[in-house]
Amino acid sequence: MRRWNGWGDDGVTTVLHDGALEFLHAQVGATTPPQDAALADALARIPASRLPAHPLLDTGAEARLRASFGQSLGDWLRLRFGRIGPVSDAVAWPESSAQVRELLDWARLVGALVIPCGGATSVVGHLRPPEGDARPVLTLMLGRMRRLLALDPLSQLARFEAGVLGPDLEAQLRAQGWMLGHYPQSFEYASLGGWVVTRSSGQQSARYGRIEAMFAGGRLETPTGTLELPTFPASAAGPDLREWVLGSEGRYGVLTEASVRISRLPEREDFVAVFLPDWAAGEAAVRELAQGKLGLSMLRLANATETLTTLRLAGHAGAIGWLERYLSLRGCQPGSKVMLMLGFSGGAAQVGAMKAQARSILRRHRGVSTGTLLGKKWQANRFKGVYLRNALWAQGYAVDTMETAVDWPRVPAMMAAMEQAGRAAFAAVGERCHAYTHLSHVYAQGSSVYTTFVFRIGPDFDAAMARWQALKTAVCEAIVQGGGTITHQHGVGKDHAPYLEAEKGAEGMAALRAMADHFDPDRLLDSGNLFGRRAI
Amino acid sequence: MRRWNGWGDDGVTTVLHDGALEFLHAQVGATTPPQDAALADALARIPASRLPAHPLLDTGAEARLRASFGQSLGDWLRLRFGRIGPVSDAVAWPESSAQVRELLDWARLVGALVIPCGGATSVVGHLRPPEGDARPVLTLMLGRMRRLLALDPLSQLARFEAGVLGPDLEAQLRAQGWMLGHYPQSFEYASLGGWVVTRSSGQQSARYGRIEAMFAGGRLETPTGTLELPTFPASAAGPDLREWVLGSEGRYGVLTEASVRISRLPEREDFVAVFLPDWAAGEAAVRELAQGKLGLSMLRLANATETLTTLRLAGHAGAIGWLERYLSLRGCQPGSKVMLMLGFSGGAAQVGAMKAQARSILRRHRGVSTGTLLGKKWQANRFKGVYLRNALWAQGYAVDTMETAVDWPRVPAMMAAMEQAGRAAFAAVGERCHAYTHLSHVYAQGSSVYTTFVFRIGPDFDAAMARWQALKTAVCEAIVQGGGTITHQHGVGKDHAPYLEAEKGAEGMAALRAMADHFDPDRLLDSGNLFGRRAI
Repeated sequence: MRRWNGWGDDGVTTVLHDGALEFLHAQVGATTPPQDAALADALARIPASRLPAHPLLDTGAEARLRASFGQSLGDWLRLRFGRIGPVSDAVAWPESSAQVRELLDWARLVGALVIPCGGATSVVGHLRPPEGDARPVLTLMLGRMRRLLALDPLSQLARFEAGVLGPDLEAQLRAQGWMLGHYPQSFEYASLGGWVVTRSSGQQSARYGRIEAMFAGGRLETPTGTLELPTFPASAAGPDLREWVLGSEGRYGVLTEASVRISRLPEREDFVAVFLPDWAAGEAAVRELAQGKLGLSMLRLANATETLTTLRLAGHAGAIGWLERYLSLRGCQPGSKVMLMLGFSGGAAQVGAMKAQARSILRRHRGVSTGTLLGKKWQANRFKGVYLRNALWAQGYAVDTMETAVDWPRVPAMMAAMEQAGRAAFAAVGERCHAYTHLSHVYAQGSSVYTTFVFRIGPDFDAAMARWQALKTAVCEAIVQGGGTITHQHGVGKDHAPYLEAEKGAEGMAALRAMADHFDPDRLLDSGNLFGRRAI
Repeated sequence: MRRWNGWGDDGVTTVLHDGALEFLHAQVGATTPPQDAALADALARIPASRLPAHPLLDTGAEARLRASFGQSLGDWLRLRFGRIGPVSDAVAWPESSAQVRELLDWARLVGALVIPCGGATSVVGHLRPPEGDARPVLTLMLGRMRRLLALDPLSQLARFEAGVLGPDLEAQLRAQGWMLGHYPQSFEYASLGGWVVTRSSGQQSARYGRIEAMFAGGRLETPTGTLELPTFPASAAGPDLREWVLGSEGRYGVLTEASVRISRLPEREDFVAVFLPDWAAGEAAVRELAQGKLGLSMLRLANATETLTTLRLAGHAGAIGWLERYLSLRGCQPGSKVMLMLGFSGGAAQVGAMKAQARSILRRHRGVSTGTLLGKKWQANRFKGVYLRNALWAQGYAVDTMETAVDWPRVPAMMAAMEQAGRAAFAAVGERCHAYTHLSHVYAQGSSVYTTFVFRIGPDFDAAMARWQALKTAVCEAIVQGGGTITHQHGVGKDHAPYLEAEKGAEGMAALRAMADHFDPDRLLDSGNLFGRRAI
């Protein structure tokens, strides 16, 4: 069953080996494992629902609790310490667009606030009911809307109900020889509709495209009516309304169906790990690979600290020791070497040609390939890494990640500024923070910058929340000051809403809000996502 | 100097050879060359300007005449027959964003309607002042805003003032070893800003991207304020406001600056002509090439009638005869064979690999390559073909083109329906129409369908206008009924405005209009483009 206060299936247990723990102790200090609140205690504190009865509503305490939290560290802290705050008043599981519409109309009638939910994997607070809003809250869970409605092999288009989760979507496609290829780390529980409305990016987006490139059309149930977006391969007919849905985060309506661009299963797929002597060589290499339009499916460059951390947490000290000695002989020294993971997908001839072209570029940057061994390991664990959050928590460590994207000239300074902001936020309260970074998505124009922060949770809820908020604020400010977007792949939600205006500008925010007022004049969907709280 | 009543530089004369004329006579009948109206007569009929004096305004008759027409066939008919109708009251040539803003503010003050203009190459009536609007009209010509403002080689971004024309833009980039690679047929006179606000697509968009993929940020002067769009390689921070500018056709504001994604000049570039035995083979081949993500820069497939027409109009009857006999021996018969032009750009190794992969696909579809000879010819004439319109007019023939894009299952029926609609519209008045089609842009999901119609102009303005309107209406209706977008690359303007709702829906149109009301509450920019005329 899905864990109520952490990531994933509660049947999956990830344990840290001794070497990993020693490494973390050395980085941020020893810890006392925390005592989590019990589910029963949390449920006992949930007040009665403020919504009237309706045949589609579930007002059970557990359903309401589960529907009110995602995976932001703030959400975790509330659940783990049992300080849950406002929860949804009822949960509905509509099974059709018509039921979504019925529920929206009903919510307006009874004066409820509506929060749509796909897979509840948000790391930016989307699902949390707002503080200080007198209206009862209805959460629309889209998880029962998961059917494959149509598959057109000629156009390589599949239409799904938007609540379908990643594995279910891929399974339905694979049964017919197809795939989508959208693999964010949250893949196991994330929904197609959630991907679209938060502009999600997957690990192999370099080949298959960010969700913006996959989303070909769909159906949005807005409070004022139904917006049907037909599929065209391309169009010059005015502004593209798909782009008003992408990133709208439930403020303009509820996405109930989506057509996506699918692919045949690739004849060949390889992931190859290459080490480079230092950051400058690694950055120059990935930039040249991206700008050369080789067609790789993935470029993922860990900085020296992340490379070191990955190797230390991997276990297999003996094998890793041999690897490091080999790399050292080839010019990639401990302390400075960086790891690059490359993905190659396609026809056998295509993959062969891409590899040859990549090899020639990497050689010039003094790259040392270790073949597909580490790549296979990465592939096998690509959705398991996120379970580490549970294992680290059990040992008293919290993990958070923050990310942006910037043009190339800003990349190195942004990486340094994000890590430094995190370290400084903890130094101010006499704590240490282990910060490391990778470029998760590399473009011709620039790159995402994805930084992980590991730190001691803190002795109690207030201390832990204060640490997290100080970290979040410091890093978000570093992102904005460094000219980055507040998010490359996590979305805005409530946690990033205060920083959106820095990039959209006052005129841009006014336009986005005007569109919300157009689609949702009664602010039925205004729980504070995207724009933050406004006076009602 | 630029021709006032046709395409391009009036120093360029294109003459049809006898074989071409015979071919056209056979298709649609003999003609009487028309007598064009003289510029002096047209100018003499232009009324006095209704606008007060302003230091930035030119109220000269010729400037106003030239600013009021683009290249739609409707525009041509008005100019060639001297039935010019409403013209702009004044033309301004702002030299900065600040002057654009000053002019917008002034226009509001004096109650003028503003029509922004880039290179005046619109084929859908953007520049024509509306009939039946009491307000005086001010045309903002952006052609003096043509500077390269910044070039960032690391991010491969160049920022230009938006009025820069294609050749000037490429020349400024090439001086530093760079290129944009946006080549619509109107390249010679089309502006960067015009490309952005009409969602333009170039001949090599398969590699360099449609303008949507090139447009990284910019500055929009709206009637209510300035919208500044920063550049990020990618972002998940809410709806992407660039997409509200793309396709906005001057209804939301005036684009004054644009940052675009540029490329290094390719090491190698080849265009190769391949013939295939029939349409089915050609369509299957281009679909497989596009879906295989080979990275080609161009795929352009002419149907049998267009292939025949291209060969007949090319001249060199002897050489073409030899070519056709060779193709016939290889299985590509006259009457059924289709011509595919492929573009390969990139590093030498990359081009080599792409060619090998393309060859292997084309062989399976019975393609016969003729090497780069026809490709070089195509490349040399890529922007000259449009001058044929002048040569045909001089012989009494009008040419118009209409285009859409549809998912693959609809492509063959759409092609047939568009050609048939054109032929039927002329048959109804006892005339013939020579219709032929190519797929100008091929995607994994589907294709553009681009049909050309050649017909006799008609004895006078009213007859010619009636023929053209019957054609336009019939083909637009065929497009809409066949599930196509009303435009893949020409834009909406005034000519396509009545058909936009068919794809956007009532909800979509309401949202697009709400955004116009937000940015332009006084309808300063509402000349009828995009949404058609509304009551003031």
